[in-house]
Amino acid sequence: MGKILVCGGDGYLGWPTSMHFAALGHDVMSVDNYLRRDLCRNTDSDPLFAVPSLPERARLFEEKTGNRVNVEIVDLADARAVEHLFAKFVPDTIVHFAEQPSAPYSMRGFDEADLTLRNNLTVTHNLVWAMLRFAPEAHMIKLGTMGEYGTPNIDIEEGWIDINHKGREDRFLFPRQASSLYHTTKVLDTDLLWFFVRTYGIRVTDLMQGPVYGLETEETKADPRLRPCFNYDDIFGTVVNRFLVQAVAGVPLTVFGKGGQTRGYLNIRDTMQCITLAANNPPDAGKLEIYNQFTETFSVNELAELVCEAGSRLGIDVAVKSITNPRKEKEDHYYNPAHSALLDLGLEPNYISIDMLAHMMEEVRQHKDAIDERRIMPRVSWS
Amino acid sequence: MGKILVCGGDGYLGWPTSMHFAALGHDVMSVDNYLRRDLCRNTDSDPLFAVPSLPERARLFEEKTGNRVNVEIVDLADARAVEHLFAKFVPDTIVHFAEQPSAPYSMRGFDEADLTLRNNLTVTHNLVWAMLRFAPEAHMIKLGTMGEYGTPNIDIEEGWIDINHKGREDRFLFPRQASSLYHTTKVLDTDLLWFFVRTYGIRVTDLMQGPVYGLETEETKADPRLRPCFNYDDIFGTVVNRFLVQAVAGVPLTVFGKGGQTRGYLNIRDTMQCITLAANNPPDAGKLEIYNQFTETFSVNELAELVCEAGSRLGIDVAVKSITNPRKEKEDHYYNPAHSALLDLGLEPNYISIDMLAHMMEEVRQHKDAIDERRIMPRVSWS
Repeated sequence: MGKILVCGGDGYLGWPTSMHFAALGHDVMSVDNYLRRDLCRNTDSDPLFAVPSLPERARLFEEKTGNRVNVEIVDLADARAVEHLFAKFVPDTIVHFAEQPSAPYSMRGFDEADLTLRNNLTVTHNLVWAMLRFAPEAHMIKLGTMGEYGTPNIDIEEGWIDINHKGREDRFLFPRQASSLYHTTKVLDTDLLWFFVRTYGIRVTDLMQGPVYGLETEETKADPRLRPCFNYDDIFGTVVNRFLVQAVAGVPLTVFGKGGQTRGYLNIRDTMQCITLAANNPPDAGKLEIYNQFTETFSVNELAELVCEAGSRLGIDVAVKSITNPRKEKEDHYYNPAHSALLDLGLEPNYISIDMLAHMMEEVRQHKDAIDERRIMPRVSWS
Repeated sequence: MGKILVCGGDGYLGWPTSMHFAALGHDVMSVDNYLRRDLCRNTDSDPLFAVPSLPERARLFEEKTGNRVNVEIVDLADARAVEHLFAKFVPDTIVHFAEQPSAPYSMRGFDEADLTLRNNLTVTHNLVWAMLRFAPEAHMIKLGTMGEYGTPNIDIEEGWIDINHKGREDRFLFPRQASSLYHTTKVLDTDLLWFFVRTYGIRVTDLMQGPVYGLETEETKADPRLRPCFNYDDIFGTVVNRFLVQAVAGVPLTVFGKGGQTRGYLNIRDTMQCITLAANNPPDAGKLEIYNQFTETFSVNELAELVCEAGSRLGIDVAVKSITNPRKEKEDHYYNPAHSALLDLGLEPNYISIDMLAHMMEEVRQHKDAIDERRIMPRVSWS
């Protein structure tokens, strides 16, 4: 069993991941500086239900399951703090979620863009140097995004592409052009990590993940207070979670523009599987492994239809309304991304089903009174 | 005649560019924070001859030619300082040289890498936002580097490539993978600028420039004190300039490894032409124009031979010595980069000649006593 450092361990994925590795018997250190909580509060984007602080979550988890998650409140953008952390805890695996995760937040204005660019790049750079100095054999699992690729007119491969040009051939990172400043920082992260991997021979797996949905994992069964933060607002919420809350609140599902925007989605339970598969399969030194991390693709219109159907199962009449797209993105496009590598490693997908959506909707309904409708309509525009 | 902001106006290219646009009758504002001077001093890498401060250079230039270069000492990594600058001087053209420019410096250790990453990305980001707010119609000419492309096994196009993949086609940024942290910051700059160009419709020209040589331009004829800073050390010097100094000092030319490393080179006079051509041909709003800026390619061995020949013209016996390569780079590789766009716009190259190299060597010989041999051998290793 290894030593696992979860960076951004208080987040939507970081906390479930911390519990998951602890439940598997690993020695887990979970660090966060509450940046996401601060930004949610500052933008009036509080999640559907309050979650305990990180140390409280860890205490509760240990009390309920006997599994320990060690916790430190650390700003990983502070290089000295990162050094102190690695001097105490030398990880075998670093799971790096510690970034400002919202596209709309990064598009609000200069201050938000500046924070996103500096924070995300600096944390990645600090972590790479801490690896080089303290744990050169460690394996970094970095959370990227399918959004790095954008929506090209060619098939999206898993991270890399062989280009045959004028009779000669070479292999390159698959071209990336993202549709927000946040997504662009993930492109820069990939460029930066690939430089360090090929120059210093470190081991990195970069996960190109699609939008995640869900509020339960195996570990949250022990106590509902162990659930991840669940945002349904326009800034920090992802589309499936938001649609479910809108359905419960009786607000028409807000489809941006034509609704043909197609992405690869996955259940938060599958994120747990994917991170575990990545951790169990570290690349050779000097190799940047890239997985496209999603289980199925949907257009926004298709998702809206599924949520409508789940609503009718519960006797909820769900309306759908197209609104002006606040983003700058193609609303009708080719989309054919590969995603076989994680399946080949053993991923067993939890696909979307009406049952599953209806179950989530019931869970959300228990917090119906807490829904603040003002948080649903887009508050940030790309123009 | 337009208003031209030269960012990094004290540098090897920034000062000659400031004079050049002033001589053409433009209203020039030249800004710098002396970062390069500080880093040269801190790394014991002082140039071959001292150059006056930026305001002193500007006074001297005006006294000798009647042409005015306005000067401000500003740290462009400070967003408020950039705002204050743009509130006073709204440019038509922004020439952005304001970055930490040394690959070896960026590879010395964490502090230097951190400074390079933060400074370069932050300055670019601040300048883009200042454009958006104060000068949305302005044209930014950004200094990139041919090093962004690395040494791929396929022909290097000018910035973009059409990829036909599995029967479908799209156009992308030409793949980039650079061989130092410094060069990687230029890759990140390109990614970032392309995001802002396509999202907000600004105008940017990104110049993929090869290594520059030379110490005179049209404007330096007025007074030798108007020459750019001329570094010959391993950290801030470029290869041709360094070889000429080594020849004069009687130190064997230091060829790194096999010497087959091939790059595209240009004379500093041609940099002046290229920047002017770029300024006179702004792209349409929303278009990122990319030019490969060099006039001819040489391997390091070929350059060493040319310098030997120039030496014998002056009766100097120049030796060549292969030393262990401190860098991580291919020493024998395919290299076929396109570079027709600037020629099509009217660039008239000053090609390398034995005459020209011998003339430069004579100029360097006037400072022979100032050469510090300890600055010549590599002090920074990539490993």
